[in-house]
Amino acid sequence: MTSYLITGCSRGLGLELTKLLAGLSSVGTVFATARSKTPTLDSVINSSNGRVHFVPLDVTNDKSVSSAVSAVTSRLEGAGLDVLINNAGIQILEPNGATKMHALEETLEVNVIAVHRVSSAFLPLLEKGKLKKLLVVTSELGSMTNKDYSALAPFPSYKISKAAVNMLTVQYAMELKPKGFTVFCVSPGWLKTDLGGPAADLEPAVGAKEVLRILDNATPEDSGKFKQIYVEGSKVYHGGEIEW
Amino acid sequence: MTSYLITGCSRGLGLELTKLLAGLSSVGTVFATARSKTPTLDSVINSSNGRVHFVPLDVTNDKSVSSAVSAVTSRLEGAGLDVLINNAGIQILEPNGATKMHALEETLEVNVIAVHRVSSAFLPLLEKGKLKKLLVVTSELGSMTNKDYSALAPFPSYKISKAAVNMLTVQYAMELKPKGFTVFCVSPGWLKTDLGGPAADLEPAVGAKEVLRILDNATPEDSGKFKQIYVEGSKVYHGGEIEW
Repeated sequence: MTSYLITGCSRGLGLELTKLLAGLSSVGTVFATARSKTPTLDSVINSSNGRVHFVPLDVTNDKSVSSAVSAVTSRLEGAGLDVLINNAGIQILEPNGATKMHALEETLEVNVIAVHRVSSAFLPLLEKGKLKKLLVVTSELGSMTNKDYSALAPFPSYKISKAAVNMLTVQYAMELKPKGFTVFCVSPGWLKTDLGGPAADLEPAVGAKEVLRILDNATPEDSGKFKQIYVEGSKVYHGGEIEW
Repeated sequence: MTSYLITGCSRGLGLELTKLLAGLSSVGTVFATARSKTPTLDSVINSSNGRVHFVPLDVTNDKSVSSAVSAVTSRLEGAGLDVLINNAGIQILEPNGATKMHALEETLEVNVIAVHRVSSAFLPLLEKGKLKKLLVVTSELGSMTNKDYSALAPFPSYKISKAAVNMLTVQYAMELKPKGFTVFCVSPGWLKTDLGGPAADLEPAVGAKEVLRILDNATPEDSGKFKQIYVEGSKVYHGGEIEW
């Protein structure tokens, strides 16, 4: 039985991941975290047969992270945490270009610094876990190599934050792989969530299912990689690695 | 006659760049900026025949940046600024690994957010300039592809900040290249400065000379590139592009 903690579960990809995990018999406990519980998340929790637990977590707040670690530690009753999914993130529209971007500081705080805050705080529990998997949900928009592919996406601060958190993940991976950890980045695809908007390529459940498949198959050898989801017939979602 | 503004000139690479430019007859004005003037910078200024001007600039402070823009605008008497070199940066030792890094917020502030603050503030002057060159001094340590090369460098926050500012530069480049700008990243080599330490590969003057050579030769077609210096016989300093 596997235990998971996911950040940013009030909606979007985090909510979809929680839904899918709630229905899997191999899953022991899912700690679904968010600043506050939404009605949708509440209904997922209520129909999860006690598998999903809500833990309040503001990833930008040290005290909130400490309280969440205490709550999870207590609920695990001496066991470790198997999988941490850093999913929480923001994407702020900046239609006037990089030179006029206004949300860089805020975006780096949530999408980069908070990933370090949360991951480092839960590391002792992950070290006691059976799987030692640490996943960072990032984005192909953070790829410098593929800059032309995402040229029209008006999110310069977001792109910068995702390049940064990719390097953060690479640094974590290099340090933790020798300890048996699997630490990697995944781009879940452009999803029809509040973040992705209605014009996006894929239903949230498609991205969530792929993220869980990649997570299941990942071994320490995948540490430090930047993974793309697989969608049959798609040139973009090729299921391989994304160039940095 | 070309005008330059360089950040972080109190020591290290910024000071070396200032020294070299002070001796070139093709150079009109060099605005050497730093939080405060060091005796070394002062002596460079005093022997520059009026070519080098000190402008106080704390890159982390909005008001200081505004005052610097006013001072430079006034000194240029209606002319534009030709070249901006974003050189100021910090590199904080974090010997306990990425999972225990403590300087991420501070490093992102100086090495990423401040580059946006300074570049966007001087953009109107650069638009009036003859060359429209915007250089960001970054580092091969910010390359995910070359992570193994820099595995032993105990600077995880620095590496993350340099990956981020590389993406920032790419975003600026994509926006500004159509306006005739040349915007790119350069890794000046591992230099024997206060930042690089005494064990580094190269004398600061070697890196500075190469940065100026690359800057001189760069055209708008180089926008968005990540350039390596050239040192004869070196496999590392190959003079080509660095992979992201």
